[in-house]
Amino acid sequence: MALQTFRKEETLAMREKLIGRSCRLFYSDDPVKIVRARGQYLFDENGKRYLDCISNVHHVGHCHPSITKAAAAQMDLLNTNTRFLHDSIITYAERLAATLPEKLGVFYFVNSGSEANDLALRLARQYTQHEDVIVLDYAYHGHLTSLIDISPYKFRKLAGQKEWVHVVPLPDTYRGMYRDNHPNPGQAYADTVKDLIEDISAFFAESLPSVGGQIILPQGYSAKVAEYVHAAGGLFVADEVQTGFGRVGSHFWAFQLQGEDFCPDIITMGKPMGNGHPVACVVTTVEIAKAFEDNGVEYFNTFGGNPVSCAIGLAVLDVIEKEDLRGNAVRVGAHLKDLLNKLQAKHRIIGAVRGVGLFIGLELVTDREKKTPATETAALVVKRLKEEDQIVISTDGPWDNVLKFKPPMCFTVEDAELVAKSIDRVLTGQLNTPIRKPITLNWKRKTSKVC
Amino acid sequence: MALQTFRKEETLAMREKLIGRSCRLFYSDDPVKIVRARGQYLFDENGKRYLDCISNVHHVGHCHPSITKAAAAQMDLLNTNTRFLHDSIITYAERLAATLPEKLGVFYFVNSGSEANDLALRLARQYTQHEDVIVLDYAYHGHLTSLIDISPYKFRKLAGQKEWVHVVPLPDTYRGMYRDNHPNPGQAYADTVKDLIEDISAFFAESLPSVGGQIILPQGYSAKVAEYVHAAGGLFVADEVQTGFGRVGSHFWAFQLQGEDFCPDIITMGKPMGNGHPVACVVTTVEIAKAFEDNGVEYFNTFGGNPVSCAIGLAVLDVIEKEDLRGNAVRVGAHLKDLLNKLQAKHRIIGAVRGVGLFIGLELVTDREKKTPATETAALVVKRLKEEDQIVISTDGPWDNVLKFKPPMCFTVEDAELVAKSIDRVLTGQLNTPIRKPITLNWKRKTSKVC
Repeated sequence: MALQTFRKEETLAMREKLIGRSCRLFYSDDPVKIVRARGQYLFDENGKRYLDCISNVHHVGHCHPSITKAAAAQMDLLNTNTRFLHDSIITYAERLAATLPEKLGVFYFVNSGSEANDLALRLARQYTQHEDVIVLDYAYHGHLTSLIDISPYKFRKLAGQKEWVHVVPLPDTYRGMYRDNHPNPGQAYADTVKDLIEDISAFFAESLPSVGGQIILPQGYSAKVAEYVHAAGGLFVADEVQTGFGRVGSHFWAFQLQGEDFCPDIITMGKPMGNGHPVACVVTTVEIAKAFEDNGVEYFNTFGGNPVSCAIGLAVLDVIEKEDLRGNAVRVGAHLKDLLNKLQAKHRIIGAVRGVGLFIGLELVTDREKKTPATETAALVVKRLKEEDQIVISTDGPWDNVLKFKPPMCFTVEDAELVAKSIDRVLTGQLNTPIRKPITLNWKRKTSKVC
Repeated sequence: MALQTFRKEETLAMREKLIGRSCRLFYSDDPVKIVRARGQYLFDENGKRYLDCISNVHHVGHCHPSITKAAAAQMDLLNTNTRFLHDSIITYAERLAATLPEKLGVFYFVNSGSEANDLALRLARQYTQHEDVIVLDYAYHGHLTSLIDISPYKFRKLAGQKEWVHVVPLPDTYRGMYRDNHPNPGQAYADTVKDLIEDISAFFAESLPSVGGQIILPQGYSAKVAEYVHAAGGLFVADEVQTGFGRVGSHFWAFQLQGEDFCPDIITMGKPMGNGHPVACVVTTVEIAKAFEDNGVEYFNTFGGNPVSCAIGLAVLDVIEKEDLRGNAVRVGAHLKDLLNKLQAKHRIIGAVRGVGLFIGLELVTDREKKTPATETAALVVKRLKEEDQIVISTDGPWDNVLKFKPPMCFTVEDAELVAKSIDRVLTGQLNTPIRKPITLNWKRKTSKVC
């Protein structure tokens, strides 16, 4: 494929005709055409370079040569389904198991986080023989029919809340019902779950709620919820689709931030697993897997767990280790938070800075006391950062007032400084002098060899 | 990845421990470990060659170098999501549109046939504002919660039939309620749908029901059903996940076998699209896409429509054309059917031979009048073909008595002759003299260069 077949305006016109418009573009007023990417950088059709602060899927960096090499080598050898024996799926499962508590050791490989969450729902229902599900307010667990049902973020705009779905408050200690000044917000929020529990199949929660606004769960919350859920015969499903694979730096999985006395019954994982390749996974216990097997029905996923997906997954794990990307997330994430905290001291519109590793949120409010969401300013910052300094960032949270950072894990201290300076300038209103000249690369340069 | 990391018995033991046992193996008594594949051939860990009669996913042949090359080149360039403009998704949609009736021109790219069918269900419900679905008996549309509900093949063994699901008879003219001796089975079977119609969202059917037993729909069926469904305000969803991309030879899509006066409202496609890479698609009309857009909710699929998936999809289309694989399906399919028809004249256990292109079924019965399914013999044939002649084939149909052929499209006349001879020998009981010596390749040979 050439870097560009059509001029940008042609691409846009054809896209509007050929692709369902429910599939939205970033910067809908002035969309960006990206033709090449490397590491934490995206390049448009004119060679202009953008700093990518949001592509958590491209976990070890866009187009990492090790991943491409592993994919091409395996594609040349074999790419069958899991009805034949093959070593790559075993090796990959074993490597993933080594990052997890011992009780989580039975894997199902699928193609997307949505497929993983749907399977988790099936596993939980089969094991518990209950239908009901408890979810956090504002949660998003995927685009499938079954997952829209358990995603308040979606079902409120669509089919509405099913009778088997129960929504509990988002444990947001900045603007939720129990805040940082509460003596034990973890316990208090967990108790909102307790009141609801009776014959449920599962409690579903992202280990760090992202669409909810880059939320950090208060300490003690998950262990206490798990205790209540288990007492009612239900299962705790940790959705690590966005948060796993070392993004939080200090731990491989975000649920581990809740301490060693907490272990989910099912974990779903997806986005960063294949660095862009469609691969995802569900891991659970022997008992839950056994109950699913005992229904006597095969689970076959055409592409899930194929040797290419597993080879790519293994290569991603290798890069995370070899390049110490968790260490990088700790260092760069801490530096970025420091810089953002300094901005908060300067700009009253910054209501909160929160995050861990390279999962960070910057919440904008027009009034620090009332915590009124500064939705318009947040949108303006996103626009200006792109226009002035070619920084790609976006917002999340129920009011779209939280700037979110979840960049490729190779993000550097320099990248963090650039973003912080740029936000400072935008918030100060100094929008006329670009912080740096656009960087334009020569497209004619040789592309790197991949195999 | 080395060809083999563990000895076969270790792989099996580790697989049983690490992978959910609902994910079943072929030949569960003596599973096969495959480490390499090319074209229509699979190779085990000892270099023994198997002829693959069932991998419809590996449409243009296992590990086709053109596909690997296209994948690696695009992986090295860019693999972002569809929120940025990119030409590959446009180019791919345009190429697919050229194979379809003009009214089907709006595409949604996803990662699996299951994701495609789930989205089709969402589109149909949004457009019609109805919930109910009509499906064919024994149908299978995917592994997701929403699709098990519309798959009698699965829901009968699991949660049972939902009140919004209506099952109509499988239009099987061999053993169904209207047979080849009926003056107009297409109309007669369509009328079974008419009786049910009131406020439905969709009629879902594979264009050639596969799990149902490699069924060829009688002429006139689909157009008539579409007429009834449309009159009731519903949509006709053609599931081409197994049957599209030229498998039937004479046409690019299997629904086209039903004549030019028939056009579905939604088509889902998947398995062969990426030759093993997880990519799938939904195509529909402007009106249906508009209704989905008008709900105001974004449809975002993390990996769906990424540049690598589209580059691979384009490469598959190129190979189908360049290697005239549709022509090959016509020629080899016809030859295989001829050979199987000759076997039918010889072996009374062969009740029916049916198929089109490289989608063929051989139905075994212990009694031609009563059409009693010869399930055990079918299983024995599968086993013997593997053991004696290293031929990989499997069964389908409600009684697992239909041997199914859906090989990679590069299947040759010689391959067809080998299979027919082997089936003849097995059915004759001449099981002691292998038809050919096992072919063993030297693994040390250089693997082909892919970029």
